[in-house]
Amino acid sequence: MPKTTLRGNALILQSGGPTAVINQSLAGVMSAAGDYTDVIGRVFGAHHGLHGLLYENLLDLSREPAHVWQDIANSPGAALGSARLKPKRSDLDRVFEVLSAHDVKFVLYNGGNDSAEAAQLIREEANARKYAIQILHIPKTIDNDLMVTDHCPGYGSVARVVSHIIAGDDLDNRSFYNGVKINVCMGRHAGWIAAATALAKKGMLACEDPEVAAPHLVYLPEVAFDESRFLDDVQRCYDKIGRVTLVVAEGIADQIQNHRFTGEKDEFGNAQLSGSGKLGDYLSELVTRQLKVKSELGKLRVRADTWGYMQRSLPGMPSPSDQAEAFWVGAMAVRYMMQGETDKMVTLVRTHGPGEPYRCVTGLCDLAEVAQKTKLMPKSMINEGGNGVTEEFFEYVMPLASLLPSVRTLEGHSVAKRLNPYMRG
Amino acid sequence: MPKTTLRGNALILQSGGPTAVINQSLAGVMSAAGDYTDVIGRVFGAHHGLHGLLYENLLDLSREPAHVWQDIANSPGAALGSARLKPKRSDLDRVFEVLSAHDVKFVLYNGGNDSAEAAQLIREEANARKYAIQILHIPKTIDNDLMVTDHCPGYGSVARVVSHIIAGDDLDNRSFYNGVKINVCMGRHAGWIAAATALAKKGMLACEDPEVAAPHLVYLPEVAFDESRFLDDVQRCYDKIGRVTLVVAEGIADQIQNHRFTGEKDEFGNAQLSGSGKLGDYLSELVTRQLKVKSELGKLRVRADTWGYMQRSLPGMPSPSDQAEAFWVGAMAVRYMMQGETDKMVTLVRTHGPGEPYRCVTGLCDLAEVAQKTKLMPKSMINEGGNGVTEEFFEYVMPLASLLPSVRTLEGHSVAKRLNPYMRG
Repeated sequence: MPKTTLRGNALILQSGGPTAVINQSLAGVMSAAGDYTDVIGRVFGAHHGLHGLLYENLLDLSREPAHVWQDIANSPGAALGSARLKPKRSDLDRVFEVLSAHDVKFVLYNGGNDSAEAAQLIREEANARKYAIQILHIPKTIDNDLMVTDHCPGYGSVARVVSHIIAGDDLDNRSFYNGVKINVCMGRHAGWIAAATALAKKGMLACEDPEVAAPHLVYLPEVAFDESRFLDDVQRCYDKIGRVTLVVAEGIADQIQNHRFTGEKDEFGNAQLSGSGKLGDYLSELVTRQLKVKSELGKLRVRADTWGYMQRSLPGMPSPSDQAEAFWVGAMAVRYMMQGETDKMVTLVRTHGPGEPYRCVTGLCDLAEVAQKTKLMPKSMINEGGNGVTEEFFEYVMPLASLLPSVRTLEGHSVAKRLNPYMRG
Repeated sequence: MPKTTLRGNALILQSGGPTAVINQSLAGVMSAAGDYTDVIGRVFGAHHGLHGLLYENLLDLSREPAHVWQDIANSPGAALGSARLKPKRSDLDRVFEVLSAHDVKFVLYNGGNDSAEAAQLIREEANARKYAIQILHIPKTIDNDLMVTDHCPGYGSVARVVSHIIAGDDLDNRSFYNGVKINVCMGRHAGWIAAATALAKKGMLACEDPEVAAPHLVYLPEVAFDESRFLDDVQRCYDKIGRVTLVVAEGIADQIQNHRFTGEKDEFGNAQLSGSGKLGDYLSELVTRQLKVKSELGKLRVRADTWGYMQRSLPGMPSPSDQAEAFWVGAMAVRYMMQGETDKMVTLVRTHGPGEPYRCVTGLCDLAEVAQKTKLMPKSMINEGGNGVTEEFFEYVMPLASLLPSVRTLEGHSVAKRLNPYMRG
């Protein structure tokens, strides 16, 4: 086994949007670093990612008592503080001043495709100035949109949360007549989160017709959004089931012309989409105006919720496999580092065959394969109508979410009527 | 022990907004009814509450195999279907035609203060036509706003859910600099749900200063909402902590003039407030315009989420004590009925002394004490600033939510700086 020749301190940065398990990776790093005290002096945390690195706001994580890491690992949010900064050319001198002043030889960048790009920029500058340093990227994103890796730590937990939300949401919606419930979930370019709501179908106990189990329709950014096809879908589903519980990825907003849904942008040019109900309100108005309702059952009831930040931050509902894997990629990043690896991202590689129990190992890929790239859902995981998922997607996602929402509906035995129909005055 | 002299069938109706445990009460009714087969012939469920009664859409619940009830009890939403209809004068003839045609002698109305009113109207009509019938009301509402009863089944679970949401939300918010996160929760007239988010403070492990634990500010409909005081609160909190994670009950929208937030109304005159982000957007704009930010830390980051229906419908996160009590009030309603009781609501009565372990028994109160009345939060549970709760509220709510969100933040040990401050270009 090759070994690193460097000796010095390590620095970990958390970057981008947090997840329910981002701190598992931090705990994994801390746990593994304890095995290499002959190589790694101290482990520093950058307070608010690149911001902490630039402003020399570092935390000495080696001073924390070991017992805190389990509680931290189980807490959502970025325990070190995150950032959405991109290193400018002019920042790179400062980066190396700080790294050098604190004898940092090992950098662990925990983030998505934006932070992979930031890691690359730091690498190039290190080469230019012949600063000996190893940099590894630890994957993290609820969006599940990183290339090469089978899936991203953080995704399994959001999949579990959103499938629970939609399972309960449909039970709430079916409590009333003529309900059309629109749910807007996270997912700007990729539909992985919206797709994961389909797990609710698999959690329905003693299910009726699978078509009756929610979500009934799922709209992904990978498929061109067409308002008239959307309305046709909703009408057909309503006519068949008497209600519709649907999911729309927030990125659909970008496809709707003549409407400005997007808010402020970060330094990577990503628009803020969450935290506004505008897309939901827009689609609600569309359905309210256009849907033809069977009138004897009362009024149409259209509601829209935009789920917001709780998708990635709800405590108490992480996926157990996601927790374990997030810890593991953190620990493995340190191990790979100790083998001399650099300029790579730790990946998760699925090794089981079709129909076999889920099995995953870690691997490595070049940063360049990940930086600034987005893995969309493949066509084979999207249904023909472009409004749902295929069995291939279920096989992919089930082990990641670990636990399905188990709910049951009462099918009911109707009592024979003894009276004439009622005409309400 | 007195005994009922009636013999016949029972009818249960679920009414109003569902809860995470409404079906526990249904399961409790079914379980207890099995002990009185000499008195109760069959148990019918009204399909969609009063709508099912008027249109003779009844389900024969006695035909369900016993094993389904546990799964149904654990499922959110109204398993029988709910309704928001109010019986009109002209409906009452029909109500008694249906009750009579199906030999219904026992009516169990599971709902809030609106359904208590409906139960009263049915009682008056029964008296007028000398139809022998017993009617009991089983309390249910996430709003916790029914009179007489210590608390309402459904509230403990929503308290658990919202405290988890806010605990995670603040960890997400503190991941970034200068975050003001506005959360809009359910609660039209009463602030019980908004207040319950404060449980997140008690769940913080190894907490920093309790003032630093979220929610930092909570706005209740019981307190007059003043925009300038709101902005002062947010500014003071931001200046002290560097972020603000706050909660606003949706009913605050009614207090904000010049803005029309309310949507359609049901037959009881209740406006629909959920499912729109308008109040959150309005407050976001207010904060964005007015807050004075320490500029070196980067831009102000204001976000708003409106939590929507998941507050009452999320599976997998009920309060265990709420589940047990919801089952229990259902079962006790049948027992009280068998003792001849009628025209009453089952109540929960707290019997433990201050500082003693939580203990609750059931009781009864007259329907007239509950119908159309709303129990607001008492002043003694609201803090002096009108933007939070008191210890008395925590003592009240902790046993109802059963389980707190356990999360931890890293306080961190700063590394001594070795360089001059950085001025980013």
